[in-house]
Amino acid sequence: MAEREMETSAAVPVLLFLPVLQSHCSTGPRRNAKNTGPWYNTTMDYKVWKKVDIDRIGTNRHVVLGLSGGPDSVFLLHMLLEMAEERHLTLHPVHVNHQIRPGDAEADQRFVEHLCEERGLPLRTVVFDCEAAAQEQGISSEEAGRRMRYRAFREEARRLEEAGADPEQIEIVTAHHADDQTETILFRILRGTGTDGLVGIEPERRTPEGYRLIRPLLGIWKTEILDWLDAQKIPYCTDETNSRPVYTRNRIRLELIPYLEQFNPRVKEAILRLGRAAAEDREMLEPMVEIGLDLHTAESSMNEICLDEDVRTVSPGMLRRLVGEALRRLGLEENVSSAHYEAVRHLAESEQPSGSVDLPEGYRVRREYGELVVCRPGKPQDSPLRMRKDWFPAEEFHRELEETLERGRYAIFDYDRMQEALGESFDRSLRIRTRRPGDYLTIRGGRKKIQDVFVDDKVPKETRDRIQMICIGREVLFIPQQKGIRRARYSARFPEMEQTEDVLAVWIRGDK
Amino acid sequence: MAEREMETSAAVPVLLFLPVLQSHCSTGPRRNAKNTGPWYNTTMDYKVWKKVDIDRIGTNRHVVLGLSGGPDSVFLLHMLLEMAEERHLTLHPVHVNHQIRPGDAEADQRFVEHLCEERGLPLRTVVFDCEAAAQEQGISSEEAGRRMRYRAFREEARRLEEAGADPEQIEIVTAHHADDQTETILFRILRGTGTDGLVGIEPERRTPEGYRLIRPLLGIWKTEILDWLDAQKIPYCTDETNSRPVYTRNRIRLELIPYLEQFNPRVKEAILRLGRAAAEDREMLEPMVEIGLDLHTAESSMNEICLDEDVRTVSPGMLRRLVGEALRRLGLEENVSSAHYEAVRHLAESEQPSGSVDLPEGYRVRREYGELVVCRPGKPQDSPLRMRKDWFPAEEFHRELEETLERGRYAIFDYDRMQEALGESFDRSLRIRTRRPGDYLTIRGGRKKIQDVFVDDKVPKETRDRIQMICIGREVLFIPQQKGIRRARYSARFPEMEQTEDVLAVWIRGDK
Repeated sequence: MAEREMETSAAVPVLLFLPVLQSHCSTGPRRNAKNTGPWYNTTMDYKVWKKVDIDRIGTNRHVVLGLSGGPDSVFLLHMLLEMAEERHLTLHPVHVNHQIRPGDAEADQRFVEHLCEERGLPLRTVVFDCEAAAQEQGISSEEAGRRMRYRAFREEARRLEEAGADPEQIEIVTAHHADDQTETILFRILRGTGTDGLVGIEPERRTPEGYRLIRPLLGIWKTEILDWLDAQKIPYCTDETNSRPVYTRNRIRLELIPYLEQFNPRVKEAILRLGRAAAEDREMLEPMVEIGLDLHTAESSMNEICLDEDVRTVSPGMLRRLVGEALRRLGLEENVSSAHYEAVRHLAESEQPSGSVDLPEGYRVRREYGELVVCRPGKPQDSPLRMRKDWFPAEEFHRELEETLERGRYAIFDYDRMQEALGESFDRSLRIRTRRPGDYLTIRGGRKKIQDVFVDDKVPKETRDRIQMICIGREVLFIPQQKGIRRARYSARFPEMEQTEDVLAVWIRGDK
Repeated sequence: MAEREMETSAAVPVLLFLPVLQSHCSTGPRRNAKNTGPWYNTTMDYKVWKKVDIDRIGTNRHVVLGLSGGPDSVFLLHMLLEMAEERHLTLHPVHVNHQIRPGDAEADQRFVEHLCEERGLPLRTVVFDCEAAAQEQGISSEEAGRRMRYRAFREEARRLEEAGADPEQIEIVTAHHADDQTETILFRILRGTGTDGLVGIEPERRTPEGYRLIRPLLGIWKTEILDWLDAQKIPYCTDETNSRPVYTRNRIRLELIPYLEQFNPRVKEAILRLGRAAAEDREMLEPMVEIGLDLHTAESSMNEICLDEDVRTVSPGMLRRLVGEALRRLGLEENVSSAHYEAVRHLAESEQPSGSVDLPEGYRVRREYGELVVCRPGKPQDSPLRMRKDWFPAEEFHRELEETLERGRYAIFDYDRMQEALGESFDRSLRIRTRRPGDYLTIRGGRKKIQDVFVDDKVPKETRDRIQMICIGREVLFIPQQKGIRRARYSARFPEMEQTEDVLAVWIRGDK
C-alpha cells in the first residue's frame, strides 16, 4: 500500500503544539454549558447549534478530526473551534489525500494546509494511493478510502496517547450528517437489514483500541451546513465525484432519494425518524440481550463465544440479537444483514449437528452438536484461552473446585464487595481480551498501568498484544498463566478475606 | 351508501347449507396434520404448501373468505378446499362487487357465482357503489372498498354466530400475500413509520367484534400463486386497474419496486425479512410494554387510558410503545406514524401543562398537568366509566376502602385463587369494555352467555352495546351499576371466602 506521512502546517510537531493550545484555552472564562450554551458568543445561530449533539464531546479533550476540506468537515472544524475555548478542546486535524482525482486532490490538500495554518492548528496529512490499495485488497476504492481514513484517525489518537495524553481524554470526531444517515439507512434497507441496521451510523462507539468515536452532526441536514457556510462566507472544497452517480451511495443520493420524494416530499425526515425509533428499540432490548447472552454463554475466549444448547429454544428475535451481541463483543461492529441472521437461525434449527454460516469480514457461526459457536477470524491457536466464571459460597469453592483448578489458571474475589463496588450484575461485564489504552491493575497502594506491569514482569514486547486478561471495563482483574507470562497477576481490589462468604471464581482453559 | 345484499348460487340460504357441508366434511378420515401434512393427497406441491401458514387455521371452523375472483382469492379458495376435509372446514365465500369497472365488475361477479355453484358453496354477494361511498365519506375509493370488504366479512361472521356458530370457531381469512406485504412495508417507510409499522400486515388479529382474522398467504409470492393456478389450469379474473399506476399502491408495485430492484434484485425478499425482524422485536418487547402500561395506567375507561406522571420519565422508546399499546387497547389498530409519536413525545416533555396531539381516526393524546391521557374519539359522556383496580389484604380492604366505595360500583375477588387459576400476572389482563361475541359470566352452577344475562336482567336492547363490563378475555368478572343496568352482576368464580387472605378490588368511577 503506497502511503507516506507528513507533518505540515507548523514547523513544530503536533505534540509540542498541544500545551500551547491547551494553555490558551484555559485562559477563557468557564461557563455552565447547560444553562447558557456556547451559542451566545458564536457566529452559529441557535437553530443550528441546537441540532448539534455537542454534549457528546467532553471537556478537556484532545479531538482528532477528519478534515477533507469539503463542506462537512470544514463545518465540523468551525463548530469545534467555536467550542474549543469553553470546553478546553485541543484540535488535531487529519487530512487523507486519496490521490483519486489528480490535481484536485493536491488542491484540496493545499486548501486544508492553508486553513490549518491560518488557525494555528497542527495538521497531519496522509497521502495514499486509494485505487492501488483497493485493487490490492480486492475491495471498492470507496471502501479502501474509508478504511484508510479511520486508520489515520486511530493512528493519530495512538500518537497522542504515546505522547502522554490520557486515552479517555482522546476523542475522534467525524462530520457525518443527517443526509449521510438517511442514505446509510436506505442503503441497508435495499441490501437487506434487520431492525438494528436501521439505526444507521452510530452517534458514538469505541474503536477496537478503545478510543471514543463521535458523530455530533447526525441531526443536521447538508443544506443547513451549506447555508451556514455560505452565510459566513467560509470557503470549502467541492468534490465533484460526489455529483456523479458512479458509486451506489451517490446513486442513492442523486437518483433514489429525489425519486422517493415524489411519494413523500419529507421522505428523508421519515427515514431519519425510523432510524431513531430503531435506536430506541435497541436501547430497550439491550439489557435483555446482555442478560440473555450471559445466561447462554457456555464458554468465551477472545476469538470465540460458545452458546449453550438452550440457546436453540429462545425466540427467533432473541437468537438474532444474542448472535449479534456476541459478534459485537468479538469486534464485528459492521451491520450483519438479515439474510445472515436467517442463515444462522436455520443452522440453529437444523437437524444436522454440524455446519457453519460465513459472515462478513471472515467471522463465522459454527454448529457443534447442540451448541452454536460464534467465531472471529484468525487461527484458533492464536488465542486459545477460554474464560469460565461462576459464583460459589467460599467454603464450597475451597472444598470442591480448588482441587480441580490449576494454580495460575484461576482467580477468586470477594463477591459481595465486588457487587457493592461495581453494581448488581457486575459479573455480566467480565470480558477476556487483550490490552487496550488505559488498562490498569489495582495493586496494594494504588493502580498500575498494564504497560508498566508488562515491563516489570519482563513480558516480551512482541507478545504484549496477545496476552489475554480478564477485565471489567478498563480494570484488569486477572492475568492468567499463559505463553509469555511468567507468573499470573491478580487484582488486589477484592481479595478473599476471613469474613468473605461468597466468592466469584474465574478460571480459564486452553494452552499454557 | 348504495348497498344491497343478495343470496346467490344455491336456492337454499347459506345457513341451511352449513350442516350439509359440515357432515360431508366429517366423513373423511382424520390424520395428524403435523406428521403427514395435507399435501400428499392434493394438487398443491410441497414447496407451495410449506409456505402457507396453514397452522393458523384451526379444526372445525367456519371460514369466511373474501372471493373477488382474482388470482389471490381463487388460490386461497382452492387451498382451503384442499384442507377442508382434513380440517373440517365449512367455507363461506363473500364477494363484494365494487361497481368500479362497469361491465367487468358484473363479469367478475358471474365468474365467482359460477365457481361457487360448481363447488357447491354458498356465496354471499354485496353490491356496493364504491365511488359514491368514497365521495360521501371523503376518503379514497381504494379505502372505501377496503372498509366495505371488511364490513361484509364481519357481517357474515356475525350472521353465522347468530345462527348458532360458536364465535371462537369462526375465522375470517384473506388472501394477502408476500407482494402485498412488501408493498405495505415500503409504503409505510415512505410515509414515515416506527419499527412496529415495519411489521406490515398482521398474520393474525381480532376484529373489533372479537372474530379472528387470518392471513395465511403472507409468505407466498404472487408469481408462485400465478404459477400454481396456471399449472392447474385454474381460471381467474384479471383486474386491469391493478396494472395502472393510478393509486400510490399500484405505483409502488409497478414503478418503485422495479426501480429498487436495480439496486438489489432481491430487494423484495430483503424488505420481507426486515418485516419479520421487526415482528420478532415486537414480540420480545411486548411483555415489557404490557407490564409498563399497567404500571403507568392511573385510570382507564373504554374511551380513555390515563398515564401517570411517572410515564414522563421512561425512555423515549418505551413511551412510544406505551402510547401505541394504549391506542391498541382502545381499538386503533392502524399503524400510527413516527411523526405522531414524535409529537406525543414533545407533548410529554413540554413545559406546558396542557396541550394535545391529534392521531388518525379521531384518536388523541391529551396532556393534563403531568399526566398523558390517550383518548378514543366520541363524546366522553358516552362512556363515562373508568376502572381502577388494586390488591389489598382482605381485612384492610373492609376496614378502609369499603366505606368509601359505593355499592354496585365495586367488586372484590379472592386474589390467590384468581392467581392460581389465571396465572401470575392475571390482573394485567383486566379490561373495561363493551360486549363481544362469546362473552360469558360464571354463575353458580355454570356459565351464562352475556346475551342471556342481559335478557334476564331486562337490559334494553338498544343499550346493550354500551354496557361496560370488567373482563379478562371472554370472561366477565363484573358488570357495574350504570345507565341501563338495574343491578350489578358479579362473577361467582372467585368469591371472597372465610379463608381469603388477599382480595383484588376493582372499582369504577363515572356517571351512574
